[in-house]
Amino acid sequence: MKVKVSRKAHFNAAHRLFKPEWTDEKNTAVFGKCSNPNFHGHNYELIVSVIGEIDQQTGFVMDMKILKELIYEHVERAFDHKNLNVEVQEFKNLNPTAENISVVIYNKLRSKIALHLDLEITLFETSRNFVTYTGK
Amino acid sequence: MKVKVSRKAHFNAAHRLFKPEWTDEKNTAVFGKCSNPNFHGHNYELIVSVIGEIDQQTGFVMDMKILKELIYEHVERAFDHKNLNVEVQEFKNLNPTAENISVVIYNKLRSKIALHLDLEITLFETSRNFVTYTGK
Amino acid sequence: MKVKVSRKAHFNAAHRLFKPEWTDEKNTAVFGKCSNPNFHGHNYELIVSVIGEIDQQTGFVMDMKILKELIYEHVERAFDHKNLNVEVQEFKNLNPTAENISVVIYNKLRSKIALHLDLEITLFETSRNFVTYTGK
Amino acid sequence: MKVKVSRKAHFNAAHRLFKPEWTDEKNTAVFGKCSNPNFHGHNYELIVSVIGEIDQQTGFVMDMKILKELIYEHVERAFDHKNLNVEVQEFKNLNPTAENISVVIYNKLRSKIALHLDLEITLFETSRNFVTYTGK
Amino acid sequence: MKVKVSRKAHFNAAHRLFKPEWTDEKNTAVFGKCSNPNFHGHNYELIVSVIGEIDQQTGFVMDMKILKELIYEHVERAFDHKNLNVEVQEFKNLNPTAENISVVIYNKLRSKIALHLDLEITLFETSRNFVTYTGK
Amino acid sequence: MKVKVSRKAHFNAAHRLFKPEWTDEKNTAVFGKCSNPNFHGHNYELIVSVIGEIDQQTGFVMDMKILKELIYEHVERAFDHKNLNVEVQEFKNLNPTAENISVVIYNKLRSKIALHLDLEITLFETSRNFVTYTGK
Repeated sequence: MKVKVSRKAHFNAAHRLFKPEWTDEKNTAVFGKCSNPNFHGHNYELIVSVIGEIDQQTGFVMDMKILKELIYEHVERAFDHKNLNVEVQEFKNLNPTAENISVVIYNKLRSKIALHLDLEITLFETSRNFVTYTGK
Repeated sequence: MKVKVSRKAHFNAAHRLFKPEWTDEKNTAVFGKCSNPNFHGHNYELIVSVIGEIDQQTGFVMDMKILKELIYEHVERAFDHKNLNVEVQEFKNLNPTAENISVVIYNKLRSKIALHLDLEITLFETSRNFVTYTGK
Repeated sequence: MKVKVSRKAHFNAAHRLFKPEWTDEKNTAVFGKCSNPNFHGHNYELIVSVIGEIDQQTGFVMDMKILKELIYEHVERAFDHKNLNVEVQEFKNLNPTAENISVVIYNKLRSKIALHLDLEITLFETSRNFVTYTGK
Repeated sequence: MKVKVSRKAHFNAAHRLFKPEWTDEKNTAVFGKCSNPNFHGHNYELIVSVIGEIDQQTGFVMDMKILKELIYEHVERAFDHKNLNVEVQEFKNLNPTAENISVVIYNKLRSKIALHLDLEITLFETSRNFVTYTGK
Repeated sequence: MKVKVSRKAHFNAAHRLFKPEWTDEKNTAVFGKCSNPNFHGHNYELIVSVIGEIDQQTGFVMDMKILKELIYEHVERAFDHKNLNVEVQEFKNLNPTAENISVVIYNKLRSKIALHLDLEITLFETSRNFVTYTGK
Repeated sequence: MKVKVSRKAHFNAAHRLFKPEWTDEKNTAVFGKCSNPNFHGHNYELIVSVIGEIDQQTGFVMDMKILKELIYEHVERAFDHKNLNVEVQEFKNLNPTAENISVVIYNKLRSKIALHLDLEITLFETSRNFVTYTGK
């Protein structure tokens, strides 16, 4: 009797898409206006899902209050109102595409959540572009 | 050529999270303000999904008019404007967490839908907390 | 150069529509299932708007961080996960319709916000039913 | 490290549900008001998802600018502000149910997207009725 | 103490923008693809708002159950799954733009709602295009 | 018979709240994390509304295709994927709060729209914070 429980969160950040080993021309050719050296930004909407058996005592797969705190501590405090390229350690050498951000969030939370629970990250860069990562 | 067809519905209900065999202190420690003995409530948003082959005659996996009626008869009429703990038989001895409510809805609908069709329940307790149950 | 600035918030509560001076029959006739004596509940979504001149120093009509705190202190802490009829002083003798709740929220916030600023309350009882009150 | 990347799009179209080999009575019995011979219509909201490995050079599963163009060229230009039954070749002999439309969109895009990438189509006929097709 | 109370509803319909006294060329020049003679369609989302004093007995400006019924009877039953140009009397000689549809809905409901109450119609033709009419 | 017609658009941009004539301490005290010198960003959602009489020939207050083009040319092209503080002329000496951005957008569009039509700007900085400016 496995259930997936999901919690929404959000953070606002600046970023640019950029490969330092590429020329400016190549960065612009591949990433277009997303490569603007002065940065642009997004309201990232995040859904963190945890999949597991319902605990027969509590009726919970996982206490959403604890999941909310983990997301706040490890994602929102780290990313909110930040420049991802300049201020967030994980993106010093990693292009902050939505795909890569979702993998970084997965890895940050994976070690904080019991291993018998599966984890899934959905990240909306805009309401029109979003990604899902399940660690597989 | 399997397709998942989904139908949204909703009901408004009161509930509290509560284990009668626990002390008040333990209920408060585990469930926090959700254990308020005077109850609180939610606008539950429900998505019922049915997965199966497209019928070559109708072009339907399942007639959405029939699914809408089943949801109305077995979920909305049973839960809407009710106190889940006090008035709904299934929660007399079952804590009405979103997880447990989704399993109860699944079980109520499972027997009404042809067995060659898979069933999936997504239940939004709020726009920030939601669960998905597939019967597996 | 007047601008309206708006901030969203939310609270989950139980309530029933009920006039103690009416018979049960009359309460049911007027309020239908909303009068269920065991209560039902909603995810109330709240928009608080403040209208005034833009401050030439800050570029703000009002600091949204302060407005967010006022809403938290005077509305969310008072109403969230509560039974409005039983636990909230303002509804001891006032029927908690969406109309009346919006007036109560207006009155609670009006005294906390500078008088040169106009105030407007929009309250969604569900995504299909909502009310707006401007104090006029 | 597979990620699903999703892009939203939309088109507005007229249609009716109708089997030419059935009598009018049978069409009405099965499809109800959806079979109105004068047509009705929808704002179709479309989510196209592509699943694959993150390219280590770009950080992309697939360039969303290219996916956006493919959706525009092969779906929006073909379906937007059209009468699906009368003007779209694929529905000359296929009932334009949401299920069948999702399969047609899948087939149109499948040949345009690299085969090492999986494809998934979600189509909202209304905000209350939607379907998902993964080609399996 | 005036409050605006609002109720959402929806209907799906086909239409085309078209002036019969104009040539096809002029219709296409002015209305573009919206003038397609085979029709296209929309999921119209409707908000009907009623403004008035709160009744001190009920706590209501107007009973939402009655408003819901009026909308169903006079708008949804008349427009849902219809071809507005072909099947709805009011558009036989009136171009069914969102502006004109909102005025028609206002006029249909105005005579059914007590005159001490103001009326306002908001009609979403798509989630990106919408109109508001207050009868003034 | 005045109708308000509204069109949604969006742009993604970086910004910071900052007064160059203030010390860093004062900027941080007033603007908090919004003053981060490395910038943060938002998906700005914009609603441009135009109010006027319905043209009896077209049934339009204003052709939405033209309004869409004006928004694209004067707002989206100017602001999308830009750093508002660094790259947008209007904010060289104006703090890019949501209030000030809405006034700038109003002023840019006001001169492009016929004077017998009123104009209203609503700008969502996030789904929780938004502003409305009517030029009054």
